[in-house]
Amino acid sequence: MKQGILEVYRDRIEGGLSHALSGDAPLRSLLRYHIGLEDEAGAPTRATGKMLRPSLVLFVAEHLGAEPDTALSSAVGLELIHGFSLIHDDIQDRDHVRRGRPAVWTICGIEQAINAGDLMHTLAVSTALESSPAAAACLIQATQQMIEGQSHDLQFERRVASSDEYLAMIDRKTGALLRCAFELGGIAAGVNGDVRTALIGLGRAVGRAFQIRDDLLGIWGRDDVLGKATGSDIRRRKKTLPIVLLFERAGGDDAVALSRLYAHDNEKDIDAASAAWVVDRLDELDVRTACEEMIRRHHDEALDRLADLPFSDEARDRMRELVEFLARREK
Amino acid sequence: MKQGILEVYRDRIEGGLSHALSGDAPLRSLLRYHIGLEDEAGAPTRATGKMLRPSLVLFVAEHLGAEPDTALSSAVGLELIHGFSLIHDDIQDRDHVRRGRPAVWTICGIEQAINAGDLMHTLAVSTALESSPAAAACLIQATQQMIEGQSHDLQFERRVASSDEYLAMIDRKTGALLRCAFELGGIAAGVNGDVRTALIGLGRAVGRAFQIRDDLLGIWGRDDVLGKATGSDIRRRKKTLPIVLLFERAGGDDAVALSRLYAHDNEKDIDAASAAWVVDRLDELDVRTACEEMIRRHHDEALDRLADLPFSDEARDRMRELVEFLARREK
Repeated sequence: MKQGILEVYRDRIEGGLSHALSGDAPLRSLLRYHIGLEDEAGAPTRATGKMLRPSLVLFVAEHLGAEPDTALSSAVGLELIHGFSLIHDDIQDRDHVRRGRPAVWTICGIEQAINAGDLMHTLAVSTALESSPAAAACLIQATQQMIEGQSHDLQFERRVASSDEYLAMIDRKTGALLRCAFELGGIAAGVNGDVRTALIGLGRAVGRAFQIRDDLLGIWGRDDVLGKATGSDIRRRKKTLPIVLLFERAGGDDAVALSRLYAHDNEKDIDAASAAWVVDRLDELDVRTACEEMIRRHHDEALDRLADLPFSDEARDRMRELVEFLARREK
Repeated sequence: MKQGILEVYRDRIEGGLSHALSGDAPLRSLLRYHIGLEDEAGAPTRATGKMLRPSLVLFVAEHLGAEPDTALSSAVGLELIHGFSLIHDDIQDRDHVRRGRPAVWTICGIEQAINAGDLMHTLAVSTALESSPAAAACLIQATQQMIEGQSHDLQFERRVASSDEYLAMIDRKTGALLRCAFELGGIAAGVNGDVRTALIGLGRAVGRAFQIRDDLLGIWGRDDVLGKATGSDIRRRKKTLPIVLLFERAGGDDAVALSRLYAHDNEKDIDAASAAWVVDRLDELDVRTACEEMIRRHHDEALDRLADLPFSDEARDRMRELVEFLARREK
């Protein structure tokens, strides 16, 4: 059986990341730890992330006719931007665990972790610039959108977003880098016009399906598969899409109780009994079904956009497999 | 009398900053506040910073033969990198005041301030990229050095650096962006070889004189001129050059008392009596004189490098005035 998109470029990407993050300074070692190239003691490990974004860059580049190595630096730069955002996100959310290991800030403190993220950010851009100024410009624009999305997400801690606002936020916070993956592949291959439009449309649809699936797993995912406590999104008052929809659908006493439970000046986590009550309300109001319906719609949209790309049949099949995996994954 | 380097380009730089930071999102407004283009309520103000770095870029560019507007985007990008670093530094140091106004994190919280710095960082690079890929690459490299210097500075909170280590740290933390100012001017003018070497040497010497002067003002500066409590560097256990030298020079009981006073697990600020004791030790061991001697040496080195530049006599005079101002300023 042929290797999937997430396997075929993995060694090359890890090599590129290792090169971009080389150096003796303690801060470099911390970055290699974060990306999964080293353990806490500095011993080599295999990267723990899916390498989704850089794999997409290289796959799109190759199947639109470019030599994938010409896109490697931009792919690595994109993964580094993703990595930088996770370091700062974990500080902002006080998340202690990232991919089953202690988050960077829990190891070196918030101050040094801010720095670690800053360094990964700037290394990302210098790496992408090695591909081309156009690739760097594309990555920088996506980074700006991602940061603005994160800013909106933080604002939504103080009030509940509408589902439209929420979807606009995730289009930026997580969608921007996924769209960028498809665009960077296209830039390496020198495509423009309709092909570029189809790439961006595919990226947008994949990004939405991916994030809504993520939100769904944060509530209904299985603990042992995901490597983090599920229901934790409820316990920690994360206002992901299911909660946003629940606020839109709940009425009467439920609406009042929900507002009280999610008031932003609540210091403590939601207790187990209240979390179970929230899950019951989500079931009662068919929120899970609504989320699954949205994922299906974006999944179908992605396949429509995929049909517009001048891929070989085989490349199209493999991309379809990936789109389906992202929309249905259990972790 | 002719305008000095810090006055002549000011309007153009403020215009460029205003353009780079335009936009309705609350995060953009926060960035304009930080850079001094708006007050806390969002009303326009004049920028409060000296605009030293971008002024240097434009001056060097112009007097090496470039049209200064071709360097404006890189000059603005450099000032934005400086601004981003201050937002994150203030979080890391828990400094409440920046240029006489509340620091960004005290207004919007640490989480959103991390984001604000991240956005300014990425806007800086996209702005510099408008000048040229070479300018962006130069700025990115300086940013990496600055962040690594900041990382060393944070490490030195846990132990006392030697004066050599300290000087290597400030060469990165604050020196990198000042050197970059001179280099960006040279890049806009298309110079290479000896001229570029002289620019880098001038930037390095100016950077050292500037930072040592800063360290000196942090202890012996006058409160009303500086806009922050002096002696505050002692009260807050900042291990700036005078303290580093004091550790190298103190012996016997003084060394023991000093080590106890600066132990990194001390939670509270140093009390007034102990701070006065530190100032007495600094005087006794001629630390201020040693710092002033170092400033003079770097000042002289700067003038030597300046002599190597193909400036007009008038441009050389104006740069000499600035070098002297930076080495002797009272704030």
